[in-house]
Amino acid sequence: MAERKIGFIGLGIMGQPMVANLQDAGHTLVVHDLDRDRLHHAVLAGAAEATSPREVAESSEVVITMLPDSPDVEAVALGSDGLIEGATRGQLYIDMSTIAPQVAVRVADEMCERGVRCLDAPVSGGDVGAIEGKLSIMVGGDEATFTDALPILRVMGETITLCGPIGSGQIVKACNQIQVALNLVGMAEALTLGAKAGVDPEVVIEVLSGGYARTRVMDVRGPRVIRGDFEPGFKAKLHYKDINIVMQSGRDYGVPLPASAIARELFGAMLAAGRGELDHSAILTVLEDLARVEARTD
Amino acid sequence: MAERKIGFIGLGIMGQPMVANLQDAGHTLVVHDLDRDRLHHAVLAGAAEATSPREVAESSEVVITMLPDSPDVEAVALGSDGLIEGATRGQLYIDMSTIAPQVAVRVADEMCERGVRCLDAPVSGGDVGAIEGKLSIMVGGDEATFTDALPILRVMGETITLCGPIGSGQIVKACNQIQVALNLVGMAEALTLGAKAGVDPEVVIEVLSGGYARTRVMDVRGPRVIRGDFEPGFKAKLHYKDINIVMQSGRDYGVPLPASAIARELFGAMLAAGRGELDHSAILTVLEDLARVEARTD
Repeated sequence: MAERKIGFIGLGIMGQPMVANLQDAGHTLVVHDLDRDRLHHAVLAGAAEATSPREVAESSEVVITMLPDSPDVEAVALGSDGLIEGATRGQLYIDMSTIAPQVAVRVADEMCERGVRCLDAPVSGGDVGAIEGKLSIMVGGDEATFTDALPILRVMGETITLCGPIGSGQIVKACNQIQVALNLVGMAEALTLGAKAGVDPEVVIEVLSGGYARTRVMDVRGPRVIRGDFEPGFKAKLHYKDINIVMQSGRDYGVPLPASAIARELFGAMLAAGRGELDHSAILTVLEDLARVEARTD
Repeated sequence: MAERKIGFIGLGIMGQPMVANLQDAGHTLVVHDLDRDRLHHAVLAGAAEATSPREVAESSEVVITMLPDSPDVEAVALGSDGLIEGATRGQLYIDMSTIAPQVAVRVADEMCERGVRCLDAPVSGGDVGAIEGKLSIMVGGDEATFTDALPILRVMGETITLCGPIGSGQIVKACNQIQVALNLVGMAEALTLGAKAGVDPEVVIEVLSGGYARTRVMDVRGPRVIRGDFEPGFKAKLHYKDINIVMQSGRDYGVPLPASAIARELFGAMLAAGRGELDHSAILTVLEDLARVEARTD
């Protein structure tokens, strides 16, 4: 694979290992983060440091962003000293953040006007997936741009799917977060009803996992949840952010999402109770609170 | 296995094949149904016909009921000319209907006062499971009664779990129907959002099935749902009945179930639209209606 000069913005819990994998694969990195401490490892391993997104764009063939939320991506891409100010024709821009699909479309539209080729490419798989280079990557964009980006994406991910035109990666990520949220809420309501009616939660998990009710969420988290082990995993506060994107997408595309709305409120209650740092499976504790089942953790 | 004299009440779409399997296993059957036409096959195969539940109880060692809903079980067990009037000490009574857990407890309490040993034993697996003798059976009751009933249950089911004391089988069945309903609703909201945002539903299914969002519901029904194939399967009207039992259980045991409540309303909308005979996965069509996505079936 050809080595390329890659700019990377956002070296958080996901971005840092993604950068490390790109460096290990022989690429030359230019990195930027508002928190300069986060650049430490990347710079030690040979990355150049840029002082603004504009500078990153000016010195890279490919720019990747991995940022917390939609406004961050808008600011980094389109804001003052943003990517757009340093963009060059034919440059490749891959936003791997999870953001609102319509923001992804708007950012790509503006970048495209400057001749930048864009992909939205949100991931799932968490920090473990990022460290192991085994993320699932959901990509929106045109086929030629996807093909060009694929060798780079393969350094970070295992399952990489072109979902459709720009924004489609974010849409599929939103769909994914709907299904995971409702699988979790279903498990939580089932376990709470079972517990309050006096049924051993292990029996509930055993029976449900043995049949049509089975979910991967239950396979992975069921045994831990009933021990009160809510070590993340995927933090509730991040799923709450993602469900807010889901609800925004519903409004943007005209799709009422009544069950996701309930999931959003339940995750909101979890954050209000100060449990945003727990694994999202701790949504169970919100149902337990509602039903006044004796809490197993707090 | 010792042949036993088994009374069976309720020869509907589930009961008929269950009776046939019991007859094939060498048991002697006494059967009863309000609709006498349904007794035809069982009688041809050697079953005696009883004119009332009382008569069934008077002439059987073991009585099994497989009825539509809680009031039917209450009437057959405790009503005039009911099982309780013909009950004998030490008799075994297995209710395999899906009913409200607290009704199961009340019926068992009254039967128990006459010396009848009771189990609640609702099933999942549908008519195909009933025909093949491969139902999942969730049993509530004491261990000795369960052990006594096990050879009979094994004729009808494959996975048979003692879930706890009387009522526990119904509780676990309710938990199962919560999880399945929310897995279905999650799939429906995800596919509707994806479709209206222009993403190929096959891509949504492919990506979600490949990761943490995976459910057995999606494995089994996803490919059919996106073709608009809603052939049951498990009819929506039956899941609606079951979710009403879920909500009743939530009230009885003091467990608020906000997401299940939404699922109940969505299934209610499906029945109101005249789609109660479709597979429950057709809950997708309700979301499509809400979002005014072009319907693929009606």
